[in-house]
Amino acid sequence: MKGNLLYEGKAKRVYFVEGNDNNLILSYKSDATAFNGLKKATFEGKGKYNNLISAKVFEFLHEKGIKTHFKQALNDTEQLVIRTTIIPIEVVVRNIAAGSITKRLGIKEKTPFTPPLVELFYKNDELGDPLINNEHALFLTDAKEKDLMEIKQAALTINSYLQEFFKGIDLTLADFKLEFGRTLDGEIVLSDEISPDTCRLWDRKTGEKMDKDVFREDLGDLLKVYDTILNRLEAVK
Amino acid sequence: MKGNLLYEGKAKRVYFVEGNDNNLILSYKSDATAFNGLKKATFEGKGKYNNLISAKVFEFLHEKGIKTHFKQALNDTEQLVIRTTIIPIEVVVRNIAAGSITKRLGIKEKTPFTPPLVELFYKNDELGDPLINNEHALFLTDAKEKDLMEIKQAALTINSYLQEFFKGIDLTLADFKLEFGRTLDGEIVLSDEISPDTCRLWDRKTGEKMDKDVFREDLGDLLKVYDTILNRLEAVK
Ligand SMILES: Nc1ncnc2c1ncn2[C@@H]1O[C@H](COP(=O)(O)OP(=O)(O)O)[C@@H](O)[C@H]1O
Ligand SMILES: Nc1ncnc2c1ncn2[C@@H]1O[C@H](COP(=O)(O)OP(=O)(O)O)[C@@H](O)[C@H]1O
Ligand SMILES: [Mg+2]
Ligand SMILES: [Mg+2]
Repeated sequence: MKGNLLYEGKAKRVYFVEGNDNNLILSYKSDATAFNGLKKATFEGKGKYNNLISAKVFEFLHEKGIKTHFKQALNDTEQLVIRTTIIPIEVVVRNIAAGSITKRLGIKEKTPFTPPLVELFYKNDELGDPLINNEHALFLTDAKEKDLMEIKQAALTINSYLQEFFKGIDLTLADFKLEFGRTLDGEIVLSDEISPDTCRLWDRKTGEKMDKDVFREDLGDLLKVYDTILNRLEAVK
Repeated sequence: MKGNLLYEGKAKRVYFVEGNDNNLILSYKSDATAFNGLKKATFEGKGKYNNLISAKVFEFLHEKGIKTHFKQALNDTEQLVIRTTIIPIEVVVRNIAAGSITKRLGIKEKTPFTPPLVELFYKNDELGDPLINNEHALFLTDAKEKDLMEIKQAALTINSYLQEFFKGIDLTLADFKLEFGRTLDGEIVLSDEISPDTCRLWDRKTGEKMDKDVFREDLGDLLKVYDTILNRLEAVK
């Protein structure tokens, strides 16, 4: 079933599906990278957590009526998705200040954003994924003004659902990153992954960081944290 | 007439006007700074060029119906303006790629932007004037969505007029930076300066840079270039 390798990224390998041009297999690696690839490590078993957690998040969003690329988890580290042409924009939604924005704009960590802040970054490793505005996005990608509106609106809707989702397992969603892609029919659907690698999640009781910041800031055992999240999710139903 | 010093910036001193709360005097220094203040030099006589060139530009924009802070040049280095509360946003309009955007987004110098690109930067020396989007601007300043629309629209209108203005003295306007402020009545008006310190101007015949890039890139005699611009302007009428 698994065909040739289409692309190897920092966190996943992407494979063709034999005899099906419309699907791809995302195979999660156990690598963690941070600071635009400057910090790297491998955590044996991490791929499983990203795959299974992202699968649960996408299933939840699908139930809520969000159009996504997700079809099903195939095994511990692989999932079947609809093939899209990724729009090279990382859409970041921030509910609470953390990470790059605190330094970039001098905003104190934990400052709430009401309404939530939406940021676009140009997905380009060489340039270090720079912040862009709508006009840059129109110039740099084939997205049109109405696509950007649709993507930002979708990001805010997804934010509301994700806040509810993570609250259900006692986590506060500080911020997260989304990618959108176009299907063969030209429909824009949520793609890529949503996991503790791509979200900032804080324990609602202790305030502890329970996401890739544990790796970025050397705060403890990353696998244990990801295992806790998966366990909490599996306990829900 | 000139009252106490209100503020000293990198390029100008700002003075109160005795007995008139509604006006200020901008006194142009002969300093040049670049790269967020890292490169500095003094060019004796430069203040005169910035003052007189900016005065001519603002007079022209006033004739075109643009609301500005400018009242009159008082002498070679000083001008009387309406006091505003500056909105801490630098509005950059780009007709052709040059400077920071070429590295930031990997766009080749001289690539034309059609339509022109409008960028907002948070005016904050400590943070290095970071690029921001509308949502950041709403969070960081007291500007409202409709103010941002008004400012961006004004910037594009001003761009058309300035392209015409500089074409009249054989210069291509690659990009420029504007600041807007609020008068006591709450009206938003174009403030600060428009000069070869704040515009990228290229000779239409030779392609030579005729602006602060001469200082940034050590291309030649800055004062001579600014003198040429003032002479061309004075020759027009
Ligand atoms: N449904 C999809 N169709 C095509 N590409 C996808 C899909 N979902 C995610 N991708 C892409 O898969 C690539 C591999 O993921 P990742 O390892 O995170 O790569 P990167 O290092 O480029 O972020 C990414 O470029 C991502 O945009
Ligand atoms: N009409 C005005 N009213 C009040 N302040 C003004 C007006 N026009 C310009 N300014 C401000 O005057 C200050 C001095 O100018 P400048 O030396 O360029 O300062 P800076 O180094 O902060 O850019 C700037 O902060 C600018 O925003
Ligand atoms: Mg990725
Ligand atoms: Mg200035």
